[in-house]
Amino acid sequence: MKLIPGGVCAAAGFKANGVHCGIRKNHSKKDLALIVSDVPASAAAVYTTNLVKGAPLTVTKANIADGKAQAVICNSGNANTCNYNGIEIANDMCALVEKATGVNSGDVVVASTGVIGQVLDITPIANGMAELTAGLSYEGSANAAQAIMTTDTVMKEIAVEFTVGGKTCRMGGIAKGSGMIHPNMATMLVFITTDCAVSPAMLQKALSSDIQNTFNMLSIDGDTSTNDMVTVLANGLAGNAEIVCEGEDFTAFMEALNTITIHLCRMIAGDGEGATKLLECVATGADSQETAKIAAKSVICSSLLKAAMFGADANWGRVLCAIGYSGANVDVSKIGVSFRSPKGEIKVCENGAGIPFSEEKAKEILLEKEIEILISLGDGQYGATAWGCDLTYDYVKINGDYRT
Amino acid sequence: MKLIPGGVCAAAGFKANGVHCGIRKNHSKKDLALIVSDVPASAAAVYTTNLVKGAPLTVTKANIADGKAQAVICNSGNANTCNYNGIEIANDMCALVEKATGVNSGDVVVASTGVIGQVLDITPIANGMAELTAGLSYEGSANAAQAIMTTDTVMKEIAVEFTVGGKTCRMGGIAKGSGMIHPNMATMLVFITTDCAVSPAMLQKALSSDIQNTFNMLSIDGDTSTNDMVTVLANGLAGNAEIVCEGEDFTAFMEALNTITIHLCRMIAGDGEGATKLLECVATGADSQETAKIAAKSVICSSLLKAAMFGADANWGRVLCAIGYSGANVDVSKIGVSFRSPKGEIKVCENGAGIPFSEEKAKEILLEKEIEILISLGDGQYGATAWGCDLTYDYVKINGDYRT
Repeated sequence: MKLIPGGVCAAAGFKANGVHCGIRKNHSKKDLALIVSDVPASAAAVYTTNLVKGAPLTVTKANIADGKAQAVICNSGNANTCNYNGIEIANDMCALVEKATGVNSGDVVVASTGVIGQVLDITPIANGMAELTAGLSYEGSANAAQAIMTTDTVMKEIAVEFTVGGKTCRMGGIAKGSGMIHPNMATMLVFITTDCAVSPAMLQKALSSDIQNTFNMLSIDGDTSTNDMVTVLANGLAGNAEIVCEGEDFTAFMEALNTITIHLCRMIAGDGEGATKLLECVATGADSQETAKIAAKSVICSSLLKAAMFGADANWGRVLCAIGYSGANVDVSKIGVSFRSPKGEIKVCENGAGIPFSEEKAKEILLEKEIEILISLGDGQYGATAWGCDLTYDYVKINGDYRT
Repeated sequence: MKLIPGGVCAAAGFKANGVHCGIRKNHSKKDLALIVSDVPASAAAVYTTNLVKGAPLTVTKANIADGKAQAVICNSGNANTCNYNGIEIANDMCALVEKATGVNSGDVVVASTGVIGQVLDITPIANGMAELTAGLSYEGSANAAQAIMTTDTVMKEIAVEFTVGGKTCRMGGIAKGSGMIHPNMATMLVFITTDCAVSPAMLQKALSSDIQNTFNMLSIDGDTSTNDMVTVLANGLAGNAEIVCEGEDFTAFMEALNTITIHLCRMIAGDGEGATKLLECVATGADSQETAKIAAKSVICSSLLKAAMFGADANWGRVLCAIGYSGANVDVSKIGVSFRSPKGEIKVCENGAGIPFSEEKAKEILLEKEIEILISLGDGQYGATAWGCDLTYDYVKINGDYRT
């Protein structure tokens, strides 16, 4: 497997584009994205567990109930959620895709991201469809990736090449996500495409399994969004024998998917609202996978630890505190904590108590942009990784007045 | 029942004092508090549920296992937690109280608050005991309240006068708490004293019941501390017939206790680290008390909502979002949201969807220092209130480099 360029268009037969249609006032900010497969594709998705669900999710769920989809349309600037006509507007967006591309409206994945609770005007979208479809291109991933950004500061795309049944396959993804990120069974907006042939059932199985250790282990601010969704479209143009059961091919596919999702997780965490650092908490020695996950995620979610990391302060007591209240089944007297970055690694806590360490060295390590917080929970066999970011002045600034 | 001055010394027979003994480097900051009852008292306490527990909690638990206590000693500047000799030091503190006051060391409540993971040196405490006990006074509550403060910006004390069995009783409390506050079955440090006669069992029953709707509904930052503790000492000097069962007297006592704890909750929330606003989320119309509590607490804990309140931004979508992911059993299509402050009340969401409202009026309401977020969840009979504060630049500043 190797990294390749092309993002969501890396796989054969996927075109994409993104334009500014006018949902956002800022003319230099694209706000409408479209991805189209040349042929119908297997489709799978996972959705937010928030009871308040964006209307687009409901429409997408219905559209891919048959395991098939051929296009993705997504706007930023308005979440089309908690308003009176969200379902109608989301269906209208699918109809516009049919009209402009010929893809059946029932084969469209529709998504929206932005402010909750405002009516989404279909007019700018309708007006923008001509430009959007005219610009569809096999090199259009970056345009689409830009168009789904909200408070994101960097575009998020990734692609890999891998082999299934002797055939070269490609898989790529784009993502948006910066705030309101604490996914549970689904996450922000992630669109993944592949030319690998996979049945809808196995595609869903792969996705549902993958996110347990990827997007569900990511938190920016503890707020589970109303519009989270991850979808995968697999159009089969690589020509491999369709994956219809577990086995070597499925394993290769899962590996590619995992590479894509972990990469996007890290990009989203590193670009968390206001973030200056990517935090990765690696738990080891746990008595179960669940224990490792609960402990790692609790550390990543602690506002106090996040603020300490912003200040490059090796305040490991907050790590222990977060493990202690997490609900994880741990023996506190066995916990060890280290911090690691490109500048080195330093152990700061052993057997649940502090040990002497160089504050100077710790500061040097923590001033880096990517920090690993290593927590050893005992002599168990299980581990887990969680991703997050520091808590900064800019998080407060961005969210103190997001709507205006 | 009426509010009276005197704090933790309002009740008959309680002396208190607070001094700077040298645990903190800042000479103008008191760091050691002592409260002593003239006679042995019934004692009750609740403790943090964090698995990482401060050593003082373990010693206190043992000391009041017989339902009796006569003194409270508490230092700030060091939590005496996650170090190798915490229990020994906590016991030493109790022994110092016995030596200086004659109160049996087994009748001492001991508490510490401050940085986790550093060894607490007994020397400054031992050296400070003479001054601390010499200054004990029936008017010393404020000194003690100041000595337990950490990042608190205001001293927290309150007292009430009430009647039980025809006798005038008094109850008062002091508290510290500003960060690492998301209590679960216990909370920060709160010391309450009363001259009402109550049996240890009924005192514990009253306290354990009360905190479910008071301190357990309070969150500053989602971090459950390792050293949380609430204790009540009841010395019986009011001369009422000892409360040994439920009934009119117990109800009067509970009412007084609830007044004290809600007042302290509001003071702690309003003085949350970096906070500029006290937030009070009032849930109504829930199908159960549990639903109301889960929803109200989730709103108060949302970083996004907290940041929006800092910016006086009526971003009600974040309220809905927080209810939606809370796990509370609600019908989203029935949710209503209003904001209220001394400047008025404004409805912003009805039946789960936005309604037109004056942004100008909303801003005026939200610029106040105390904001109520009113959430109606349907046509059920249950309600709950949760307390919190806004998320500000100063929270990040305070916690970005707390140790140095």
